[in-house]
Amino acid sequence: MKQRVYNFCPGPCTLPLEVLEETQSELVNYKGTGMSLVEHSHRGPEYDEVHNETVSLIRELLEVPEEFSVLLIQGGATMQFAMVAMNVMAQAEKAAYVNSGHWAKLALKDAQVYGSTYVAWDGADDNYSRTPVASEISLQPDTQYLHITTNETIGGIRTFDWPDLGVPLVADMSSDYMSRKIPWDLMDVAYGGAQKNIGPSGVAVVIVRKSLMNVSKRELPSALDYRQYHSSGSRFNTPPVFPIYVAGKVLKWYKERGGVEEFEKVSIVKSGFVYDAIDAGNGFYDCPVTGESRSRMNVVFRLPNEELEAKFLAGAEAEGLVNLKGHRSVGGMRASIYNAMPMEGAEKLASFMDTFRVANS
Amino acid sequence: MKQRVYNFCPGPCTLPLEVLEETQSELVNYKGTGMSLVEHSHRGPEYDEVHNETVSLIRELLEVPEEFSVLLIQGGATMQFAMVAMNVMAQAEKAAYVNSGHWAKLALKDAQVYGSTYVAWDGADDNYSRTPVASEISLQPDTQYLHITTNETIGGIRTFDWPDLGVPLVADMSSDYMSRKIPWDLMDVAYGGAQKNIGPSGVAVVIVRKSLMNVSKRELPSALDYRQYHSSGSRFNTPPVFPIYVAGKVLKWYKERGGVEEFEKVSIVKSGFVYDAIDAGNGFYDCPVTGESRSRMNVVFRLPNEELEAKFLAGAEAEGLVNLKGHRSVGGMRASIYNAMPMEGAEKLASFMDTFRVANS
Repeated sequence: MKQRVYNFCPGPCTLPLEVLEETQSELVNYKGTGMSLVEHSHRGPEYDEVHNETVSLIRELLEVPEEFSVLLIQGGATMQFAMVAMNVMAQAEKAAYVNSGHWAKLALKDAQVYGSTYVAWDGADDNYSRTPVASEISLQPDTQYLHITTNETIGGIRTFDWPDLGVPLVADMSSDYMSRKIPWDLMDVAYGGAQKNIGPSGVAVVIVRKSLMNVSKRELPSALDYRQYHSSGSRFNTPPVFPIYVAGKVLKWYKERGGVEEFEKVSIVKSGFVYDAIDAGNGFYDCPVTGESRSRMNVVFRLPNEELEAKFLAGAEAEGLVNLKGHRSVGGMRASIYNAMPMEGAEKLASFMDTFRVANS
Repeated sequence: MKQRVYNFCPGPCTLPLEVLEETQSELVNYKGTGMSLVEHSHRGPEYDEVHNETVSLIRELLEVPEEFSVLLIQGGATMQFAMVAMNVMAQAEKAAYVNSGHWAKLALKDAQVYGSTYVAWDGADDNYSRTPVASEISLQPDTQYLHITTNETIGGIRTFDWPDLGVPLVADMSSDYMSRKIPWDLMDVAYGGAQKNIGPSGVAVVIVRKSLMNVSKRELPSALDYRQYHSSGSRFNTPPVFPIYVAGKVLKWYKERGGVEEFEKVSIVKSGFVYDAIDAGNGFYDCPVTGESRSRMNVVFRLPNEELEAKFLAGAEAEGLVNLKGHRSVGGMRASIYNAMPMEGAEKLASFMDTFRVANS
């Protein structure tokens, strides 16, 4: 049986080993209740505690102000591409989108079903290799919100300049949630799938300014109406128990280790190891992203040719460094280094990169 | 530590012990891959196998014909209340709903957002204590589909006469999926949340006639469009890995034990124990449901007074028979006896009921 590997998968992705072990120990008989937590009623005291703890840890770790509601909703960020627009976009106004790549484009496409949208900054000209500074973003009058993708998992770029342009932000934070502070005074909505930095797949964390509940005035069915989740504490129907339960354990693990502030520092160090290995290579490794746009969660790079890339992947895997293949749409390598990736994993990858480069230059 | 109990919870609910134990054994290191399945890529070979096996077991166990697509969608049955209407309801036509109780009413309410609906049979006059025979259902011209709830978890009633009225059926089967055959020739859509007879909460199984994909001609965002799930095998975005993984194990457990046909027989026997205990009581136990409407999944009954009900619940719990309290909206008792409830659990409950009655009559 293989020992635990360093898993650089972009999501679903590595989780803290301690969290998995604790989940395993409780799986059949949860806290001596004679059944698994996933067999308990979603309205019973055992799940009550789990659900409320997960929500309050999100609030605490991200310092969410009282004016915002923390909602747990199924369907991932993709469901939010639509729900944000149908709940928040007032029909007389427009929504602006920063087109930073793959995920931004999908968010824009779904929002178009519900109202008037436009691209306020387009990264296509730079092949999505950077995010804009705020002054590059062109807003039109009557814009209700500006949508940004704070980290593009495929392009390996991050928002470094939160746009403070007098229009509230709606942010897809799927792949860098819990890795940095959120400037709530600029925000209307932050949302993201759990399956990177929060827990297993199957739930999205949606943090909405309370005053925006159905500002759109659209008639909405219950499962798509933020008000239903808000008024019921995200339990008007059966929630996805296991993802929320494990998310709670992950968040507790973060809290015990210093919280978001500490993980931000760690993410700079961990991604720094890999960027240093890239930059030390004199062009052997090619990262299309430069400067402050470089993601701390997803480090993308290419090797001189595809043959070497295949050799690199095989060599890395033999060292227990797995899932380094880049997204099929862009090729190359991608090292996803989320909060749960141990420091040693990033160090070992950087060290492997140095050795591989020397051996193959 | 408490030994395993008999859990009569209406959902989330009891799962097969063997399934929980196998899940536990694999949780940290899935099949020797050095990581949990929930850490694997949703596009990798390990999850491929799990996903495809779950879908093909659904198809096999329910004998789903080739003309139907099996979709796995987040959001539970509640999301389907809306999605069915927005995907399937043609805008020029009407949808008929059998109002059999709590869940039927919610399904109808959400469908009303998307088009013209009407109640084709109303159970309110009988206080939702029975389902109709087909001849009682009044359909109007230009009705596109007739929506039924094949089992009302709260009312404890089941559809016994599948309406064959020349209008295709859309059926919410959340609480009796996998407990009986489905007459596919009458069907357009069958859907249901997994958290009763399929697995943990967090996924719905939606079985749609392929010819109906967006027959509504509505413009839909990706997460709400059946075509997206159909064309991608329910993987255009990250699926809820854990619920689908455990569902696959539950379905395999069913298959090994004779499949749906066998579980239908077993459900008649198990629920029969409890109905016999009710009927033998000469009115001590009062079940509002009679005859063929009696659910085989959720047996509801009351005792002579609330004091005795409290005593009953406490006594049952002391015997390891838990979660027998009825839904808050109706009170009384509810024994949910899904496929994973062992025969001995139902026998033990019936025996406890007899003893309790004799001691308290």
